[in-house]
Amino acid sequence: MKALILTENEAEDIEVLYPYYRLQEEGIEVHVASTKKGQVTFKHGYWLNADLAFDEVNPDEYDILILPGGRGPEKVRLSKSALNIVKRFSEKSKPIAAICHGPQILISANLVKGRKLTSWQGIKDDVIAAGGMYEDKPVVKDGNLVTSRQPSDLPYWMSELIKAIKG
Amino acid sequence: MKALILTENEAEDIEVLYPYYRLQEEGIEVHVASTKKGQVTFKHGYWLNADLAFDEVNPDEYDILILPGGRGPEKVRLSKSALNIVKRFSEKSKPIAAICHGPQILISANLVKGRKLTSWQGIKDDVIAAGGMYEDKPVVKDGNLVTSRQPSDLPYWMSELIKAIKG
Repeated sequence: MKALILTENEAEDIEVLYPYYRLQEEGIEVHVASTKKGQVTFKHGYWLNADLAFDEVNPDEYDILILPGGRGPEKVRLSKSALNIVKRFSEKSKPIAAICHGPQILISANLVKGRKLTSWQGIKDDVIAAGGMYEDKPVVKDGNLVTSRQPSDLPYWMSELIKAIKG
Repeated sequence: MKALILTENEAEDIEVLYPYYRLQEEGIEVHVASTKKGQVTFKHGYWLNADLAFDEVNPDEYDILILPGGRGPEKVRLSKSALNIVKRFSEKSKPIAAICHGPQILISANLVKGRKLTSWQGIKDDVIAAGGMYEDKPVVKDGNLVTSRQPSDLPYWMSELIKAIKG
């Protein structure tokens, strides 16, 4: 099983690193994609190497998509290739886990309308304006979408995702 | 089940936060103790509130002890109360999980002699000088001690600990 994290500079470190290590614990291979291959440096100074640029990704090779938050998603959503990856996961009903500002990417991929989801409170109105059914809960699961609000929700977010992929 | 993290300012953020959230995923209540109650700020700027000062801790209330690394352990090891907590866990053979510089606390608590363990490479010689049997592996388990070297070992460290407490 393989997971893909879409991220960029200034992402929220723990929202990248927690799923990165957590999915490895489950024996899942985790790749990181960004606008460019190479070092991606997060908000607090942690960094990872992007294995792939967005336009090098074949989404059909992956089973799980992770969209961390922070200030990364406002950069990720500018990439047509990144949005195409997300849309492909959606078409195939593969799990997409987004947290905090991660749902900004879902908005730009037109995947929010009529879906139950949550996000960082600061983008709640954007989620609603895009037609999403916002819920203020630690984790919201609607079909293949698993969303959370903030770092303190990480245990709920990951346990819900892992239940979904193991179930 | 309850876990206790002993930490201080300048600890390695991810080595505190990963077990903090990961054990919550398992339904374990996690408390943080430090020299003083209140905010503890880690190396990269993440912070948590210490629920207790070291001298307020009753170690018999806890089942698991976590010793993260970074520059926190050099402060933690100065507290006699902190060392007494660690010694009590050892007497009772309860799981102690240390990573990176965390084993500095084990050295000061005189718990390293004759034990197999690992640590951050920069303190390998201190571990050996204290009588430890150093192994350069992602995780080393010797009885109740579960040790790892660095953040990239986090998935190995936590899965070994969780296996130990569930087994």
